[in-house]
Amino acid sequence: MKATMLYGPRDVRFEEREDPKIIQPTDAIIRISATCVCGSDLWPYRGINPITQPTPMGHEYCGIVEEVGSAVKTVKPGQFVIGSFFASDNTCPHCQAGYQTSCQHKEFISAAQAPIMRVPLVDGTLVATPDVPSGDFIPSLLAVSDVLGTGWFAAAAANVKPGKTVAVVGDGAVGLLGILSAKQMGAERIIAMSRHASRQKLAREFGATDIVTERGNEGVERIKELTKGIGVDSMLECVGTQQSMMQAIHSTRPGGYVGYVGVPHGVELNDEELFFTHVHLHGGPAPVRRFLPKLIDLVLNGKINPGRVFDLTLPLAQVAEGYRAMDERRAIKTLLRP
Amino acid sequence: MKATMLYGPRDVRFEEREDPKIIQPTDAIIRISATCVCGSDLWPYRGINPITQPTPMGHEYCGIVEEVGSAVKTVKPGQFVIGSFFASDNTCPHCQAGYQTSCQHKEFISAAQAPIMRVPLVDGTLVATPDVPSGDFIPSLLAVSDVLGTGWFAAAAANVKPGKTVAVVGDGAVGLLGILSAKQMGAERIIAMSRHASRQKLAREFGATDIVTERGNEGVERIKELTKGIGVDSMLECVGTQQSMMQAIHSTRPGGYVGYVGVPHGVELNDEELFFTHVHLHGGPAPVRRFLPKLIDLVLNGKINPGRVFDLTLPLAQVAEGYRAMDERRAIKTLLRP
Repeated sequence: MKATMLYGPRDVRFEEREDPKIIQPTDAIIRISATCVCGSDLWPYRGINPITQPTPMGHEYCGIVEEVGSAVKTVKPGQFVIGSFFASDNTCPHCQAGYQTSCQHKEFISAAQAPIMRVPLVDGTLVATPDVPSGDFIPSLLAVSDVLGTGWFAAAAANVKPGKTVAVVGDGAVGLLGILSAKQMGAERIIAMSRHASRQKLAREFGATDIVTERGNEGVERIKELTKGIGVDSMLECVGTQQSMMQAIHSTRPGGYVGYVGVPHGVELNDEELFFTHVHLHGGPAPVRRFLPKLIDLVLNGKINPGRVFDLTLPLAQVAEGYRAMDERRAIKTLLRP
Repeated sequence: MKATMLYGPRDVRFEEREDPKIIQPTDAIIRISATCVCGSDLWPYRGINPITQPTPMGHEYCGIVEEVGSAVKTVKPGQFVIGSFFASDNTCPHCQAGYQTSCQHKEFISAAQAPIMRVPLVDGTLVATPDVPSGDFIPSLLAVSDVLGTGWFAAAAANVKPGKTVAVVGDGAVGLLGILSAKQMGAERIIAMSRHASRQKLAREFGATDIVTERGNEGVERIKELTKGIGVDSMLECVGTQQSMMQAIHSTRPGGYVGYVGVPHGVELNDEELFFTHVHLHGGPAPVRRFLPKLIDLVLNGKINPGRVFDLTLPLAQVAEGYRAMDERRAIKTLLRP
C-alpha cells in the first residue's frame, strides 16, 4: 500500500509501505473509510516538534474491520469502528477513572493516514456502530475520533453546565467543536474568539452567541465588558500558546473553570499569578474513549453534525496538499479519502 | 495602645500606636481575645517579601465587638465575632460564588496583632457566635479565622470525598489542619508528608493514617508505592515552593485533584508537563468566609479541636519571640494574648 510519511519540515510523502499486519492477539486491522490531518500534525510539519526520522502520520480514523487477533472479543470483521488517538486497555485504574489517554498500557496511534492500519488493544480502544453507517455520516463519525472528542473534553473539563456563560479561545476545528459541545451541554451564552469570517460563520452555526476578535489583554478586556466585569464561568483553551493560555485564565471569573486541550508549546505558568485568579484548571490529552459511545449516538441520531469542520476533501494520495492547505489556513480541516 | 509592627527582616517591634477608630459606617472596632502569627507572616519576616516601610502586622483574630459604624446591621457591641484575613462585602458576584477573597471590594486585614483592631465591611466579614464562648474555645475559634479555613479550602479544592485517598504536602499549621479537614470530609486514607516527630504526632491525632518522610522525587515514589502505583485521589499543597508543588502534582493520579493554598513563591509550572499529568488544579487565597459558619459550629459542638496547632502561647507584648520561635521551627504556631 501507499501511506503518509513525514520526512521533515513541510516534507510530506505518500509512498510505498508494507501492509500492516496483526502483531499482538489484541490487535485488529482496519480498512480506513476516511482519515484526516490534525492541527497537532502541523507542529512537526512546521518543524516546531523536531522530526528525527521518517515518521508515519495520522491518528484519526474510522473504517471497516478486516481482521482481528485471536484475543479480540468486542469487534469482528465487517463492523464499522471508530477509535481514539491513544489505544487503551479501558480496564486499568486510570481508564476506569475515565482517563484512557493516561492508560497504564497506552499506545499512541500513528499511521492512520493510510488505506489500512493496525490498531492495538482493540477491546479497550474501538467502538463499533450498530450497523455500517451510510456514507453521509462518515465525516461526522471521523470527527468524533479526535476533534469532537477533544472539544467535548475541553467543555467537560471547563465544567460547562446549563445556563452558563462560556468562551472559547481558538477557532480551529477543536475550538469550533468545543462550541458545539458547550451548546449540547446547555450553555446559555457562548463567546467565540475568532477573527476569520468563515470560522466565525461556522462558530455561529455551532451555537456561538457572541464573537470577540481581539486577542491578548484586549481580548480579556472585551470578555470582561461582555460579562459585566465578572468574566466567564467556563473557558475552553484550544490553542496551547502562552498568549492563549493567559487570555483564557484572565477571562475566567474567580471560581470559574478553564478546560485546556491545546497541546502546550513553551507555556510557563506563573503560579503566583494563577493563585490569585482563583480559577480551576484541568485538561490534557482528551480521553476520547470515555465519550465515544455518547458522541457516536449523537451523530447517528442526527443531533449534531461535527463533520461540518471539514471544509476540504481530498483523495488520500493528495495528502501533502491537505497539510499545505491547513498550514496556510486555506482550510480548517482536511478530510482524506483512501 | 501598643501593637505589632514589622520594620524589616527579623525586626518585629511592639510599640505605641494610635487606637483604631471607626472610619467608614460599615466598620467595627473589636477588642481582641486572641491573635497569632501566620506562616505567611514569615515571608516578610525573613525578608523574602520586601518591607518598604514599617508595617502593622496580623490578620487572624477573634474577639468582642466594642463599637460598630452606623451602617452595620448584623453584629452589635458585646458579641463575640470571628472574621477572615480579607474583608469582603459578601454580596458581589464573586462572593456569591463563594470566592470572598476575590470580592470586588476586598480589603486585606492587617494590624490584628494588637489589643484592639478595626474591621471594615463588617456585615460581609464577621460572623458572631450565638453566645460569648468560654475561654477554652478561644484557640480553636481563632484557628478558624485562617489556618483551619485555609486547610479546609485546600481539602475542598482537592475534592476530598468519603473513601478517598488523600495526601498533604506541608506539616505547618495549615497542612496539619488540612489533615483534620480531610478526615472530617470522610477521607479513608490520609498520607502526611512530614519529617518532624512532634508534627507527625499531631498529624496522626488529626487523622493521618500514613507518614511519608521523603521529599521531592523520592516523596513522589513513596506515595506511588503506597497507592499501588496509581497516585492519590486528592492532594493538598500547603507550602508554595517549586519542589512542594511538583511533588503534589506528580503524586496525584490522572484525573485526581490538587488543592493548593501555600502562597506560591517563585513557582513556575511547565504547562506541557502539567498537561500530561491530567490533574485538576485549584486553589488560591482561601475564601474562609464561605466556611466560617460551618467551622464555628464544628468547634462549638466539640467535633474538632483545631486549636491544638498552637504549641506556644505568649503575652502579646512578647510577639517578637513568637515570630522567632516559628522562624526557628521551635513552634508550629504561636498564639498571642493581649
